[in-house]
Amino acid sequence: MDGKGIPKSIKLPETIKVFRNLKNAKRFAIDIGGSLTKIAYYSTLSHRRATYAKDKEKPLMSDDHTYAISESARLHFVKFETKYIERCLDFVQANLVGTREKMVGKIIKATGGGAYKYSNLIQDKLGLKVEKEDEMGCLIKGCNFLLKNISDEAFVFHRHANPEYEFQTADPNIFPYLLVNIGSGVSILKVESEDSYERIGGTATGGGTFWGLGSLLTKAKGFDELLELAEVGDHRNTDLLVGDIYGGDYKSLGLECDLIASAFGKVCHLSRKGKQMQCSEADVAKSLLFTISNDIGQIASLYAMMHNIRKVYFGGYFLRNHPLSMHTISYSINYWSKGSVQSLFLRHEGYLGAIGAFLKGAEQCGENYSWQENYAGSSALEPQPCTWLDNNVPFAQLEMDRWESPVSFCPLLSDPNNYIPDAVDLNVDHEARKYWLDCFEQSIDKFVDCAIASQVDSETAEERANQFKEQYIKRLHQLRKQPFAYGNLTVRSLLDTIQHCMKEFDFPDPYISVKQCENEAALSQLSERLNYLDSLPPEDRNKELVVSVLAGNMFDWGARAVVEIMENEQFGLSEAKEKIPDRPWLIDNLDMWLERMRGPAHNHAAIFIDNSGVDIILGILPFARELIKRGTKVILCANSEPALNDVTHKELEVILSQAGTICPIINQAVENGTLEAMETAQAGPCLDLSRLNSSLAKAITNVDLIVIEGMGRAVHTNLYAKFTCESLRVAVIKNRWLAEKLGGEMFAVIFKYDSGNTIF
Amino acid sequence: MDGKGIPKSIKLPETIKVFRNLKNAKRFAIDIGGSLTKIAYYSTLSHRRATYAKDKEKPLMSDDHTYAISESARLHFVKFETKYIERCLDFVQANLVGTREKMVGKIIKATGGGAYKYSNLIQDKLGLKVEKEDEMGCLIKGCNFLLKNISDEAFVFHRHANPEYEFQTADPNIFPYLLVNIGSGVSILKVESEDSYERIGGTATGGGTFWGLGSLLTKAKGFDELLELAEVGDHRNTDLLVGDIYGGDYKSLGLECDLIASAFGKVCHLSRKGKQMQCSEADVAKSLLFTISNDIGQIASLYAMMHNIRKVYFGGYFLRNHPLSMHTISYSINYWSKGSVQSLFLRHEGYLGAIGAFLKGAEQCGENYSWQENYAGSSALEPQPCTWLDNNVPFAQLEMDRWESPVSFCPLLSDPNNYIPDAVDLNVDHEARKYWLDCFEQSIDKFVDCAIASQVDSETAEERANQFKEQYIKRLHQLRKQPFAYGNLTVRSLLDTIQHCMKEFDFPDPYISVKQCENEAALSQLSERLNYLDSLPPEDRNKELVVSVLAGNMFDWGARAVVEIMENEQFGLSEAKEKIPDRPWLIDNLDMWLERMRGPAHNHAAIFIDNSGVDIILGILPFARELIKRGTKVILCANSEPALNDVTHKELEVILSQAGTICPIINQAVENGTLEAMETAQAGPCLDLSRLNSSLAKAITNVDLIVIEGMGRAVHTNLYAKFTCESLRVAVIKNRWLAEKLGGEMFAVIFKYDSGNTIF
Repeated sequence: MDGKGIPKSIKLPETIKVFRNLKNAKRFAIDIGGSLTKIAYYSTLSHRRATYAKDKEKPLMSDDHTYAISESARLHFVKFETKYIERCLDFVQANLVGTREKMVGKIIKATGGGAYKYSNLIQDKLGLKVEKEDEMGCLIKGCNFLLKNISDEAFVFHRHANPEYEFQTADPNIFPYLLVNIGSGVSILKVESEDSYERIGGTATGGGTFWGLGSLLTKAKGFDELLELAEVGDHRNTDLLVGDIYGGDYKSLGLECDLIASAFGKVCHLSRKGKQMQCSEADVAKSLLFTISNDIGQIASLYAMMHNIRKVYFGGYFLRNHPLSMHTISYSINYWSKGSVQSLFLRHEGYLGAIGAFLKGAEQCGENYSWQENYAGSSALEPQPCTWLDNNVPFAQLEMDRWESPVSFCPLLSDPNNYIPDAVDLNVDHEARKYWLDCFEQSIDKFVDCAIASQVDSETAEERANQFKEQYIKRLHQLRKQPFAYGNLTVRSLLDTIQHCMKEFDFPDPYISVKQCENEAALSQLSERLNYLDSLPPEDRNKELVVSVLAGNMFDWGARAVVEIMENEQFGLSEAKEKIPDRPWLIDNLDMWLERMRGPAHNHAAIFIDNSGVDIILGILPFARELIKRGTKVILCANSEPALNDVTHKELEVILSQAGTICPIINQAVENGTLEAMETAQAGPCLDLSRLNSSLAKAITNVDLIVIEGMGRAVHTNLYAKFTCESLRVAVIKNRWLAEKLGGEMFAVIFKYDSGNTIF
Repeated sequence: MDGKGIPKSIKLPETIKVFRNLKNAKRFAIDIGGSLTKIAYYSTLSHRRATYAKDKEKPLMSDDHTYAISESARLHFVKFETKYIERCLDFVQANLVGTREKMVGKIIKATGGGAYKYSNLIQDKLGLKVEKEDEMGCLIKGCNFLLKNISDEAFVFHRHANPEYEFQTADPNIFPYLLVNIGSGVSILKVESEDSYERIGGTATGGGTFWGLGSLLTKAKGFDELLELAEVGDHRNTDLLVGDIYGGDYKSLGLECDLIASAFGKVCHLSRKGKQMQCSEADVAKSLLFTISNDIGQIASLYAMMHNIRKVYFGGYFLRNHPLSMHTISYSINYWSKGSVQSLFLRHEGYLGAIGAFLKGAEQCGENYSWQENYAGSSALEPQPCTWLDNNVPFAQLEMDRWESPVSFCPLLSDPNNYIPDAVDLNVDHEARKYWLDCFEQSIDKFVDCAIASQVDSETAEERANQFKEQYIKRLHQLRKQPFAYGNLTVRSLLDTIQHCMKEFDFPDPYISVKQCENEAALSQLSERLNYLDSLPPEDRNKELVVSVLAGNMFDWGARAVVEIMENEQFGLSEAKEKIPDRPWLIDNLDMWLERMRGPAHNHAAIFIDNSGVDIILGILPFARELIKRGTKVILCANSEPALNDVTHKELEVILSQAGTICPIINQAVENGTLEAMETAQAGPCLDLSRLNSSLAKAITNVDLIVIEGMGRAVHTNLYAKFTCESLRVAVIKNRWLAEKLGGEMFAVIFKYDSGNTIF
């Protein structure tokens, strides 16, 4: 925590503010360990939120939106060394503006060994009654919460490999698993469901043993200095290897010569012979780390095998994502289980107890909600402390934002266990990582301009927008050095980070004016366009409908190339259609699709839509209307929160209402429920089908056609997803680098139809 | 090994000579570990052995026995610290009188890590070609050999309990088991049969870790000083206990307050707070011992549970029967396996590798033989080193004598797994232990006199007899202090020890003259006695036959009370009958037996006989003759080697031959095999039915009546044994203390008939 574990060469930017929004803190929990203390609290936040007129009699105008103040909820978890507990409690007390009175008589859930020791201190400082919670129960509750809500919470660690951090994707079934908590000692917990766990074992050889023996054996001050020492030591000077005894491999037993036969076994041989010790303190520290990590790894893998469990998560102070320790434990688990057990580490392992304690009886965190990591307010994967109070107090922090609906896996995925949303893993693909980090850095000014333009009435808009820029650029620089710092690095996570930072600086919807202008313009052309389409013979019409969707998808304010065109040229549907390349497209299943359209109607289609304006109104709506005319029920699935110029669910409702005044077919479909707008519970331009709004997931259970539109949803994500029903992925690649990477050229077309092995 | 592990108050007598009989050494093996070296060799020994005339035409006379020189075989295993290897090899070389030439070009099997390092040294010193053998394979082979041949080789250790050492009885099925070998590192081997084993695991945290870390953390010189330190330390000064964290038990997890939560966990708490260390080097040593023992115990128990194995044997340098280490490992195994796994230690664990290496391809140790620990030449359970070469070189030694037949469990035992030969465990029963040790000490002069009398022609007899006395008295003194020193302490083992020591000083059969005198006298009365018995009506005859067996059993030179009578009075069958108390006897199933004799004849009876003279000739022979007359086939089972005045198999053959000249029924029965003499493979006055001569065991498979006669065979041992067939235990208790202990008086009668649930 004091930062000594970080190689000196990496100087990290700090953009994380600690203990935010304390004045609105509603409920506290605390986990006090021998080494680290974690404070959890819940706060409500006031944000600008765009609202929309819904009067369908009235045409939608660009001044029809207003900002209202809206409340949202956030969980804060702050971690610091227990030695600073008094300073931290003082700070919290001082910042509970007007809240302290309200707190008196209320409770604070407390867990960890220190809960007993610091009970009175907490009561004195915060005026809260301390209610102790079982430590192991809290760990499990916290672990379940993270695994359910943060899809790339867990990772496999491969030291010096590419990638070093292999983040896991969301798992539709997280149970059963083992949680090995390595604090001073070690507890091994078997978790079989949300409510059932058992402590099946443990060992007293844990972090306390490393630190205790380490402080007797070396001059290292504290845990991190000891780890630093270990990092540079050579255990071969202290440990007796198989080769030292047998002069090589012990072949008949399959023991390789560099395997440790006896930890510290060389020391007595040396001392016994009166030879001077050949080993340094660093060597001793390394041996010690190996001994303890190996031991825990072996015991954990034996328990896992005994209980037939494949997944073992490690948590607790000992690891704190320290590469050498994670490596040794992983190696040991793999060695002893012969690969049958997987060792998994958690990005936020330090918070498990605090999260669990907070959740005990917290009605704010029930089953009606889901939670998402806030990239803007959370600190990076350790060891990377931030500092606070004149750089004296190192801390780390996790913030999670509440989502007002539960989320579920998309029921149409053929193999949800192995679903990976993102087409490219920027942790692995160095070239792609460099490209996209450059690309986002170069695009940042466009976002800033747009943010300022969206709040012309605000005096602080420019300042806030520049703060946004600073934070985002710093984050990009951090990710260049440590791409694993916030879990999976993908185009999706980079786009999500923009949204989180924008929201942080109170730009909830920078593209709101742009979106409404374009919707107005497009709606004005809808009637004429529908008439034209209706006049075509069916085969030509179906082809024209596809081309319209593609042309519509050109209108993307997230794509720099298009933004330049849109800013500098007259650019409408027909101009866009001209940019669509000749067939055959990069992926071109149009003939299959047309053939399919000659067949029977689909019963039920779900269309995941992309941009406002031409895209939704002149591209998607006519396409959906054609399906409806054939007798297909259609759900249009829109983002719940704004992202670039993507249509939000609220906007979509207004658009459908307006379109209904123009087209009787649409009007009737909306009235009788044949055409429905639903929200995805997404807030970015990409689409994570492991976290769909549960109501939507339920509604699309029997869908026989899923359509996913746009670069974010159908190329950056879900390009390779497999579905149980027919699927259509439609997008224009408005990025030359990506188009070329996929073997095409600028504006290459993806039109991917998959029958999903359906026979119709 | 340097003796520092022994409490100063116990001064041990030393009676063990090292490297005996080197001049007849035939074959060598060596196991060189990092700490200890073990040399194994095979030697042939020349002993006096009584021979008997067998001419049945000639009456048996007291001068018909002669001593011939007879060869027997012995295995020697000598253990010393590897640092003395050169001195020891020099000694061996110097004592290979005339043998060295014969050795040149021959091989020595070598195992252990040092086999590689010391190869040339061995070759130079002994002229033997070093042939390396796989270490683990040798350990297993050695372990199987000990478990098969020494019935109380393994023990459970209960620190401070009574008894501390719970020795195991012989197991008809030793497989499967785990062998956990704790040397510098730890290997865990699963053994499923004589020929199949697998290294299923191990850990580098072993003896080398204890020694290595111990030498970094304390000023202790060497392993034993470290153990001494640990013995007086208090781990609560260094380890963090559950109570230190939670202020008491962690009840919801069932963790008691004195359980170690974090080994060495208190050290960093102290040092972190800048407090002076509260822990001493002794505390540190104890914590270290606990940490490592706990760890090994837990890992071993997990492997055992995973492989569904109940028995875990521990071996290797780390333990060496050190009480604190054995206790911690046992506690740990029991704790983690919830009692489902048993931790077992081996009396001779240090020799496993050397035994195994020796056995590799040793035709002298094939399946046609069995082996028995020689109590006279073997040293006691460690830590109790003997010293050598002006007290400078500590050593320990195991000698095993070859038995010229394989042994098996008696097939008539109902529950061979739980068969315990001995009725009283002198390790547990302190009063009985004191009594018997006193009793044997007080009787020793009688044995000495008798030994001298048996070799009137030898000039060295008196000197040898006194040496015998000195050794035996010293052994008794040692057993008073450490009753566990040679495994199970029982009347049987004390009697066996007399025999081993007698043989050691070349008194193979001290009672030979006495036995022959008495046989002559009894044979002269046989004819008359048979006539009298034949004249009785059946009911009276059967009763008289039983009383005769009882009266005959009075003639016991091992019973002091009887010896005094026999030496001072005219004492024949009729005098003996007068000493038999009136009925009801102490155990009196005579009526049941008489009732049984009114029923159908037994098909096949085995009678385990006791003393020479009146006992066999006027007691057992008429009883057996009656069974034969009814149509029962009878096997008379006699000791293979002399013990007191017990009939040996060779003597029995002569007696039957002589009796045949007196009684035609006996003659005919011997001729047609209805009456057969077989040998038991026993060499003491007791009877261990887990080690019967395999031929005898095979022959009695279908026996429907087993008769066991005498105090040694039916009271000291087998009083509580259960059989699958009918059984008769017949004995007169010629020891007041024992009689009273069993609730009777001097000369109390045991006549125990058990139908064995047989329906006839």
